[in-house]
Amino acid sequence: MDADVIVVGGGVIGTAIAWRAAVAGHQVTLIDPDTDDKASLVAAGMLGPVSESVFGEQDLLALNLHAIERFPAFNAELEAASGQPTGLRTEGTLAVAYDSGDLAALDRLTEFRHSIGLKAERLDPRACRRLEPFLAPSTRGGVLATGDLSVDNRRYLAALRAAADAAGVRTVVGYVTGVAAGLVRFRAPADAGAEETAELSAPTVVVAAGWGTGRIEGVPDQIRKAIRPVKGQILRLRHPGNLPHIISHTIRAIVQGRDIYLVPRADGELVVGATQEERDDRDITAGAVHDLLRDAMTAVPAISELILAEASAGRRPGTSDNGPILGPVTPASPQLIVAAGHFRNGVLLSAVTADAVAALLADDQPHQAWTPFNPGRLT
Amino acid sequence: MDADVIVVGGGVIGTAIAWRAAVAGHQVTLIDPDTDDKASLVAAGMLGPVSESVFGEQDLLALNLHAIERFPAFNAELEAASGQPTGLRTEGTLAVAYDSGDLAALDRLTEFRHSIGLKAERLDPRACRRLEPFLAPSTRGGVLATGDLSVDNRRYLAALRAAADAAGVRTVVGYVTGVAAGLVRFRAPADAGAEETAELSAPTVVVAAGWGTGRIEGVPDQIRKAIRPVKGQILRLRHPGNLPHIISHTIRAIVQGRDIYLVPRADGELVVGATQEERDDRDITAGAVHDLLRDAMTAVPAISELILAEASAGRRPGTSDNGPILGPVTPASPQLIVAAGHFRNGVLLSAVTADAVAALLADDQPHQAWTPFNPGRLT
Repeated sequence: MDADVIVVGGGVIGTAIAWRAAVAGHQVTLIDPDTDDKASLVAAGMLGPVSESVFGEQDLLALNLHAIERFPAFNAELEAASGQPTGLRTEGTLAVAYDSGDLAALDRLTEFRHSIGLKAERLDPRACRRLEPFLAPSTRGGVLATGDLSVDNRRYLAALRAAADAAGVRTVVGYVTGVAAGLVRFRAPADAGAEETAELSAPTVVVAAGWGTGRIEGVPDQIRKAIRPVKGQILRLRHPGNLPHIISHTIRAIVQGRDIYLVPRADGELVVGATQEERDDRDITAGAVHDLLRDAMTAVPAISELILAEASAGRRPGTSDNGPILGPVTPASPQLIVAAGHFRNGVLLSAVTADAVAALLADDQPHQAWTPFNPGRLT
Repeated sequence: MDADVIVVGGGVIGTAIAWRAAVAGHQVTLIDPDTDDKASLVAAGMLGPVSESVFGEQDLLALNLHAIERFPAFNAELEAASGQPTGLRTEGTLAVAYDSGDLAALDRLTEFRHSIGLKAERLDPRACRRLEPFLAPSTRGGVLATGDLSVDNRRYLAALRAAADAAGVRTVVGYVTGVAAGLVRFRAPADAGAEETAELSAPTVVVAAGWGTGRIEGVPDQIRKAIRPVKGQILRLRHPGNLPHIISHTIRAIVQGRDIYLVPRADGELVVGATQEERDDRDITAGAVHDLLRDAMTAVPAISELILAEASAGRRPGTSDNGPILGPVTPASPQLIVAAGHFRNGVLLSAVTADAVAALLADDQPHQAWTPFNPGRLT
């Protein structure tokens, strides 16, 4: 045996799992191809339990509420263990509207948040622009969700890696092609740029390979079929040296029916996201960049003065019912666990996913919010 | 003496001068900082003698006509000497209009081209879309200028460098800070990342440092004051593997009063340019990228499917009268020559600029089209 636990995948999910498993006393090996092709690196780091997409999905909402409650303590422990700040921001999210249809949607969102005990304050246009003076004058109103958070997803992943290292997690560079209970096969870089196939064994294997989970042999077919890549393109803007930071809250806007979000960082970065495309490439397209910039500048016109520092694309792990997949792949194979399919909520759910896997490794039950997301639901 | 001729600046102007001087038998040293901060690398390579900007500038028009006539033979010699293709295209430029005001402007352009003996064919919308099937259906008409050319500016500069090398030009990496008749002072990279100041001497010094010419001590004040950086932002798009090339001519469009051009390459690159800003930075701004994409997609909607491969910014050497500056800095200093201020026409004018400097080095007169562009006109 090469370890107690092998974790497949070094995004925020896999790395959080590896860190917490190591802290719990397990000998952990993490296998990851170490490329920039990670949804965790492309994400914006917006952490809100409620969005249009979970309006009617009560189970997912309950899981997200569990996750947002857990996140600050997990993050504080992570910053202490890694010695690295993750850029957590607590100003909240300001959702803004531009016409009466959008306003009605915001009212429904406000009512919904109140009904589940979340904060939401309805603001008139004047109040919106007092909070965010660079909002377009055409803003018709908004809702301030003070409980929402954001984190710098890249700093967060870097902190998870540092914490995992410090806790003794061994990292192996490799591209996993197959798993079985107790065994992982992978291609690893060899001399002269070639690759060689290798294997590692451990009593427990956790597959946390995002959308790539669907490509790994040995993962049961019903799980593989349930996971698909959902492409997202996202922009990273920066303030030129002479410009003060133009927004301080995460801003969500519905612009002609399209949802856009703007996530500010303390270092002057402003993330604009994101497209959602049923495609399996990472191309940055002219049309997507145009649409993101147009919608962002509609919400906050001064964004035109910012530097376009980066456009990137990632593939989120979408699932057939939009929920993550967590648990032993079959009741008969408790040694092979899957933790994937986190779709748009990978960063938010990373802490409670690590908790849940730690519970499974200790032969405990994960938090009850996870029950609906057992692999057994997939047929 | 370190050489017969020292050329300051390794863009298309300086490198063309160095190559032709070496071919003429001179010992040539070229000094260049060897960074990517070169207008030559940012340009699109569109070669047309007539644009809105030279409508009323007869001297500049005459020079451009001289240049476009000369370019193909110069380019053929360059490709032979370097062994590298420059991507010359001869399909011509299709200028298109979207409203009656634009159409009237195209009619004036057609008449003007005819009046000076250039080809221009007025096309109805159907004929435009036969030539370029991906043009927007809203195209109201166009003009095909068959004499216009384009070249891949980066391949062209690379070919000039290779030809210069092959002709024996010595290249020194350095940032020139001062010149005098017979002398060049520069900062050069030294050990451990530091820089050291050095000097080279030669009977003749040619300053071809683009907008940076205005920063070099020893260049007379009236020349330094006449040159200013004019920022341009430009996009490089690429076709995804499954898409046929969507345009085959250079397309110029006036979109709501803004001039945009699309320059296709044989390798699938499509250059979209360019902004014109009185600024001295190289920031890529959200607003500029948005506007370029919006206007390009207005002209050719399918551009939305292309990959946004690069956004870059350069600083063109604008001058007080929009014309280049070529000749000895003063009649009393024939050993110090300036060849700068080529603004938007650097690639087009590079061949005839090299010819003109070669004539000066041989104590001949440059072509008469250069007469109005003597430094003596600046006061």
